[in-house]
Amino acid sequence: MGQRSETVRRANLAAIVRELHLRGPQSRSELVARTGLTRTAIRALIGELVAGDLLVEERGSRDGAPGRPSALVRPRSDEIMVLALEANVDSLAAALVGLGGEVLAHARMPRPREHVTVDEIVADLAGLVKTLPLPPDDRPIGIGVAVAGVVRRSDGMVLTAPNLGWRDVPLATRIAAGLRTNRPVHVGNDADLGAIAELRRGAARGADDLLFINGEVGVGGGIIVDGQPLTGVAGFAGEVGHMPVNPNGRGCHCGSVGCWETEIGERALLRLAGRAEDGGFDEVEAVLAAAAAGDEPALDALTEIGRWLGIGLAGMVNLLNPRVIVLGGLFARAFPFIDRALDRELDRMALRGPRGLVRVAPADLGIDAPLFGAAELALEPFLADPAGWLGPRAQLATAAGA
Amino acid sequence: MGQRSETVRRANLAAIVRELHLRGPQSRSELVARTGLTRTAIRALIGELVAGDLLVEERGSRDGAPGRPSALVRPRSDEIMVLALEANVDSLAAALVGLGGEVLAHARMPRPREHVTVDEIVADLAGLVKTLPLPPDDRPIGIGVAVAGVVRRSDGMVLTAPNLGWRDVPLATRIAAGLRTNRPVHVGNDADLGAIAELRRGAARGADDLLFINGEVGVGGGIIVDGQPLTGVAGFAGEVGHMPVNPNGRGCHCGSVGCWETEIGERALLRLAGRAEDGGFDEVEAVLAAAAAGDEPALDALTEIGRWLGIGLAGMVNLLNPRVIVLGGLFARAFPFIDRALDRELDRMALRGPRGLVRVAPADLGIDAPLFGAAELALEPFLADPAGWLGPRAQLATAAGA
Repeated sequence: MGQRSETVRRANLAAIVRELHLRGPQSRSELVARTGLTRTAIRALIGELVAGDLLVEERGSRDGAPGRPSALVRPRSDEIMVLALEANVDSLAAALVGLGGEVLAHARMPRPREHVTVDEIVADLAGLVKTLPLPPDDRPIGIGVAVAGVVRRSDGMVLTAPNLGWRDVPLATRIAAGLRTNRPVHVGNDADLGAIAELRRGAARGADDLLFINGEVGVGGGIIVDGQPLTGVAGFAGEVGHMPVNPNGRGCHCGSVGCWETEIGERALLRLAGRAEDGGFDEVEAVLAAAAAGDEPALDALTEIGRWLGIGLAGMVNLLNPRVIVLGGLFARAFPFIDRALDRELDRMALRGPRGLVRVAPADLGIDAPLFGAAELALEPFLADPAGWLGPRAQLATAAGA
Repeated sequence: MGQRSETVRRANLAAIVRELHLRGPQSRSELVARTGLTRTAIRALIGELVAGDLLVEERGSRDGAPGRPSALVRPRSDEIMVLALEANVDSLAAALVGLGGEVLAHARMPRPREHVTVDEIVADLAGLVKTLPLPPDDRPIGIGVAVAGVVRRSDGMVLTAPNLGWRDVPLATRIAAGLRTNRPVHVGNDADLGAIAELRRGAARGADDLLFINGEVGVGGGIIVDGQPLTGVAGFAGEVGHMPVNPNGRGCHCGSVGCWETEIGERALLRLAGRAEDGGFDEVEAVLAAAAAGDEPALDALTEIGRWLGIGLAGMVNLLNPRVIVLGGLFARAFPFIDRALDRELDRMALRGPRGLVRVAPADLGIDAPLFGAAELALEPFLADPAGWLGPRAQLATAAGA
């Protein structure tokens, strides 16, 4: 009996904290409505969480709503925070992110596109972290890392990261050593984490079935089904860049032929625009600038990318029946130039039923989607059981009848 | 407190019944190991389920195991049973299936390939049911229906079934009226249900991530992720036949071009084998017989089907990272003639990681996979809460301290 009511208490504490983390500050009445708990239970649980420094309750004047403003409960982003890191092909990034998703500090540095050792990347990331205004104590409760590679979540092993030249790199262990921390380090694939971030804080808020397509040199994907990441048997799911779409197409670095990536990736765009295929980020920006200025060859190249993007998306719409498709990276930047061709192919090639239900949108979070997803990953153990973070103070307050 | 322990009791009863339904008869010790419940709890719960006629406990001599045979608990397939129905393009079928998956009676009749009204199909299904040796009382606790169409599960509405010529048919309601039953009628897409059946009773037993590809005139798919069917936002997911695989290919009846179905469906096979595209089931059988006799054109046609099958599967392997791919219908019958070409394309076009983890197998349950999946669908409400089926007798026994 004591055992069971303790389980229920912890689950209820978790429900309240997750609700505030995902939807932002709310009044007690809103929490009653959202969680289905009684007003009395909410009062007691919030008391405990406030005493434990996880939440704060404050008079709020909500944006223009009539009547007496009711007190808002908000997450203590200054007390519960994580460190988010990202290693992608063009840049490294670090951020300090608080409970509720508040970005407390943020830094990004470009990096040259070449194969580097994990030691170099870890050293650069550690340097980047040092530039952040971290609190003096060892406050971040965990570290999340987004990486452009295939990741085994259980132990943070990067099985392969073609664009970094890595294979079987124990990234979680290396990061922990490099940052001299004993906090847990969680590693995820950048597109998978971008999908989570867009779902929770970006273009797919409120949706449960999401496809996130991230376009850079490679094309990665994150699939969310019923609110949960689809990982497959071993975390390999979402390798959308390597769907065959053109059996008479070009060879792909993966060894196959006609992969989607060979038709829609950065190299395809540069080739179509008559530029050097390995021109990189700057050349892509030049194509986009030319298109914005009305340059026909640039516009045609982008239309062709949009067309192939639509062909591949049509297959995934028929296969997965998603609510939202979020386009990130290159596709977000190019969205105004590709969306019409993309829509046309979706109309032509996707089945009427699922086509009618899906919305295509550019990523809200831009290049930072994977980084913010890494923060969500690092917060997950806390969100699953915040009671574990309640200190002696809270227990004292509870015992005193708070 | 009383409320809560009642919830726990019902959940434990459900765990035991589901375990026996899925894995077959087991000893009490095995149930202790599988469910994590104590020996005492298992004894009390089984007593209740035996008194309620849901289970029976009997001395069993297990196949060759040494030592004293222990009593086996088995589901009462003679007490808890459902009616399963199927309407596909070539035949209608009905079966009486008991708890545990035992097929108590089974009938299938061919039907000509033409568009028919729902009234005709319902009348034929009702006639087929009359041929089954049903128990004299109204014993089946529910009806499951598999249909080759896009189905809204919530109310059993068939939104579209191109091969039957249906659109917006309230099939569940019609079946209930045609059979004069007030038992609940559950309708599902045939490939989705085939996937469930192969997962629980067929070629994918023990796997949690499954792709079921059913080849007939059309090509349908069922996706199981983490043991759960992937339905998408509105149940449209799994329309694998309409993934674009050949942008320079043929027009599809769906209005698109180069759908997978146009390269691997029955019509593609007949065309490649130099036969009439609309020759139907018999002509397909003739091609398979010719191939078995060593006929080169037939073998070449099947190799080409295998090649395109492999191309499309490679995309899905990269996208979904499944454990097992089960090939049903036409692909199961043709398996010995297509498997080498299929493997070759998978090796070439799927990524090394997910390729190494996936197994491709022909369906175990043959043409009956969707029918047996319909039985599982109809049993689901019972499996979710078998306590609701415990009669007064069981409650009496419990009160007396059984």
